[in-house]
Amino acid sequence: MKIDLNCDLGESFGRYTLGDDAAIMPYITSANIACGFHAGDPGVMGATVRLAKQHGVAIGAHPGWPDLQGFGRRAMQLPPDEVEALVLYQIGALAAFAKAEGLDLQHVKPHGALYNQAASDEQLAEAVARAVKRFSLDLVLVGLAGSRLVEAGRALGLRVADEAFPDRAYNPDGGLKPRSEPGAVLDAPQQVAENALRLAREGVRIAGLNLPVETLCLHGDHPAAQENARLVRETLEANGVELSAL
Amino acid sequence: MKIDLNCDLGESFGRYTLGDDAAIMPYITSANIACGFHAGDPGVMGATVRLAKQHGVAIGAHPGWPDLQGFGRRAMQLPPDEVEALVLYQIGALAAFAKAEGLDLQHVKPHGALYNQAASDEQLAEAVARAVKRFSLDLVLVGLAGSRLVEAGRALGLRVADEAFPDRAYNPDGGLKPRSEPGAVLDAPQQVAENALRLAREGVRIAGLNLPVETLCLHGDHPAAQENARLVRETLEANGVELSAL
Amino acid sequence: MKIDLNCDLGESFGRYTLGDDAAIMPYITSANIACGFHAGDPGVMGATVRLAKQHGVAIGAHPGWPDLQGFGRRAMQLPPDEVEALVLYQIGALAAFAKAEGLDLQHVKPHGALYNQAASDEQLAEAVARAVKRFSLDLVLVGLAGSRLVEAGRALGLRVADEAFPDRAYNPDGGLKPRSEPGAVLDAPQQVAENALRLAREGVRIAGLNLPVETLCLHGDHPAAQENARLVRETLEANGVELSAL
Amino acid sequence: MKIDLNCDLGESFGRYTLGDDAAIMPYITSANIACGFHAGDPGVMGATVRLAKQHGVAIGAHPGWPDLQGFGRRAMQLPPDEVEALVLYQIGALAAFAKAEGLDLQHVKPHGALYNQAASDEQLAEAVARAVKRFSLDLVLVGLAGSRLVEAGRALGLRVADEAFPDRAYNPDGGLKPRSEPGAVLDAPQQVAENALRLAREGVRIAGLNLPVETLCLHGDHPAAQENARLVRETLEANGVELSAL
Repeated sequence: MKIDLNCDLGESFGRYTLGDDAAIMPYITSANIACGFHAGDPGVMGATVRLAKQHGVAIGAHPGWPDLQGFGRRAMQLPPDEVEALVLYQIGALAAFAKAEGLDLQHVKPHGALYNQAASDEQLAEAVARAVKRFSLDLVLVGLAGSRLVEAGRALGLRVADEAFPDRAYNPDGGLKPRSEPGAVLDAPQQVAENALRLAREGVRIAGLNLPVETLCLHGDHPAAQENARLVRETLEANGVELSAL
Repeated sequence: MKIDLNCDLGESFGRYTLGDDAAIMPYITSANIACGFHAGDPGVMGATVRLAKQHGVAIGAHPGWPDLQGFGRRAMQLPPDEVEALVLYQIGALAAFAKAEGLDLQHVKPHGALYNQAASDEQLAEAVARAVKRFSLDLVLVGLAGSRLVEAGRALGLRVADEAFPDRAYNPDGGLKPRSEPGAVLDAPQQVAENALRLAREGVRIAGLNLPVETLCLHGDHPAAQENARLVRETLEANGVELSAL
Repeated sequence: MKIDLNCDLGESFGRYTLGDDAAIMPYITSANIACGFHAGDPGVMGATVRLAKQHGVAIGAHPGWPDLQGFGRRAMQLPPDEVEALVLYQIGALAAFAKAEGLDLQHVKPHGALYNQAASDEQLAEAVARAVKRFSLDLVLVGLAGSRLVEAGRALGLRVADEAFPDRAYNPDGGLKPRSEPGAVLDAPQQVAENALRLAREGVRIAGLNLPVETLCLHGDHPAAQENARLVRETLEANGVELSAL
Repeated sequence: MKIDLNCDLGESFGRYTLGDDAAIMPYITSANIACGFHAGDPGVMGATVRLAKQHGVAIGAHPGWPDLQGFGRRAMQLPPDEVEALVLYQIGALAAFAKAEGLDLQHVKPHGALYNQAASDEQLAEAVARAVKRFSLDLVLVGLAGSRLVEAGRALGLRVADEAFPDRAYNPDGGLKPRSEPGAVLDAPQQVAENALRLAREGVRIAGLNLPVETLCLHGDHPAAQENARLVRETLEANGVELSAL
């Protein structure tokens, strides 16, 4: 039994530090690296790619809305062709830092509000998937398990990965509880680790059915990010779940 | 006798249109496409790459300072590693749109103040050249003829192209007359065309010596941009100078 | 019979020129000046305020979403307190240029998607109105005639002005036809002028009722902006409608 | 004997927190609040103004270069009229939040590279001073003791305040040692406090002469910011120096 463990990293910007990438990188198998629109900057992107390389962690682009102040977590409505272009732009920007280190990107996973909107908005999901495909059919598109986004990727012939969030609360329909609601982000590392094990074994439960997941996401800006990562990895391995990139 | 004719294109942004790319593209052999920092946006970049493809025009990245309001024409002082990262970022972003169209980038040419500063600042020139090399040794680095930038590129083993400006006035030392000074931009297309022919035949005159040039640049935001392009091409061809990309 | 004629101006940005403010200013009585978030920059704001002063045109802040690439016309979802703060910020920024010329702001009118969203979203409307009130009770809040925005302003004790658009098509519910739909922007200056006269005399028709309007808006980035302005003013005055600021 | 103690605050941005304003505010008499160009955002500005009000701390605008990624610490070259406009813009934006709380701005102090460049560049200094004067002759212009900036303010008839930095190393000419050099920022709070006392008593030593200073600046993003503030205040008061706003 195998699963990928991913984390959103490279979210610092200029003078501003967010998260502790060096503390988390040893525990994960895939890094979603911000591309400068909602977080990250060229220097941070280069440094994060090098850090991932040192730890043998697979690299993915983490494109978001062009909204640094909102950290890409405020919904925006853009025409599909503009979405396609801004995702393609961000993939290319990160790919340059990977290429400079002799690496290829493994995956693309939208960030924040773009991720959430693409989970249910078909046109948006298709726009994101088209951008990924236009860059390379070798890229894996990561999306919320059972969402429109993974459906759109499959329909275009992309490899996709259904994702679940051990540190977030779910709604009964399989969507994430919005961050604006209390309890949306789980505090206790022990609970996060138990969720991770259950999600790895049983998948997510959506509308009464269990859907297997291929990758688990931890948030790098969570106050207990490092402890979550350490405990999730330990718990999974102690229970016979192998951690491996996509 | 052969020369490349290049133009800065893709300089529109969102609701703002600058230049008439469709009018100029038929006359040139290489397009320097803005990458979203000083001008251009993802949608404009994609559209400009497609337009260049239709006309068989070679594509290059045109990275600039992160200064949209100043159009990249206001000098900035950044540490070399930040310059390297922001150039690499912009190359990658444009390369994604080229890749999506099945094309490779031909060249990289810095824009505006970055171009001018890199012409004389050795550290800056090396930072730009390192970014180009880290992306690909197949890229041609375009810089002001005889400048530190082309020297830095050569020193790193890159193919370089010495550039001259038929629509700009020169200082005796081979530098461009600053835009803030009167007469810096030439108005008359006929004069621009004559300059182009002379530069193609004799190169630029720097400190009493003639230095051959491999590419001529026309400005897409010049009021007579299309007429300049048409007349320069006509004049060069009528005088036996073949136009061909780098 | 009196009415105000307003126009969105100061929408240029850096190297990018949009609209011809000098051509339109002579015909209007109020100028809505972009504040640097969706359009405009500090230099443009100062120049537009001076131009308005020369023509005796009243000055208002035209705050928009922080989305220069989308020209503030792409919907965004922000918490009310963030909306209140960004509107207050933009009012203050423009007020500084007015103060520097010895002038006070007359009014505030949100731009683009912020205007449209605040027309129907009560929380958003209240956030905008609170920002205006916190700056000064002397400011007039301009909003779509009959919208939540003018209601919110009235409820807070602000002077409000119901606005109509002679150069736009309306939906039967009194909302503007979205720009993404064909026919949303009227082309013919003659039709725009006729609309202006009808709107000045009869107000807008919403759900079978006529609602009087106190200000008419022309778009400065309309291809026939100057002709619209000239013809609207001429038509109104020829028919006994006096043009006067709020 | 009296002196003002100021600190750069409100430097957080969106998801990014920088400094601990609430911890420092109790110790200072004047707050320089970032205005959204190099740091700060509308929400942060409002919150920082309210915090200052609670503590009875005088409020000043802290305008900087439009360079969020560089935190306004990277030199830029802009024409004087653009500098004047961007300073006026930022003063107005902050003044709106003060006005909303029933307060007036006390002072204006440029940030980072703008501050340093205006210390020696006469044209730049005059542009900053003009912006301050155009907003209000009641504002105090704060600048490096003995610099062109305070000279320019005096020449325009503004009240000025000569400033010194207890947590920074000085060059013999009275300029600050650049941050890029080792030892530019002093680490030990005890040393910072001793410097503060000496500067309050003797002023700064420039070219062999002692120049009195009216305000001391502590950096809010210093690792020991709170301890510096506490110890400086304690040391000054214990030695009979009264702390009082400008």
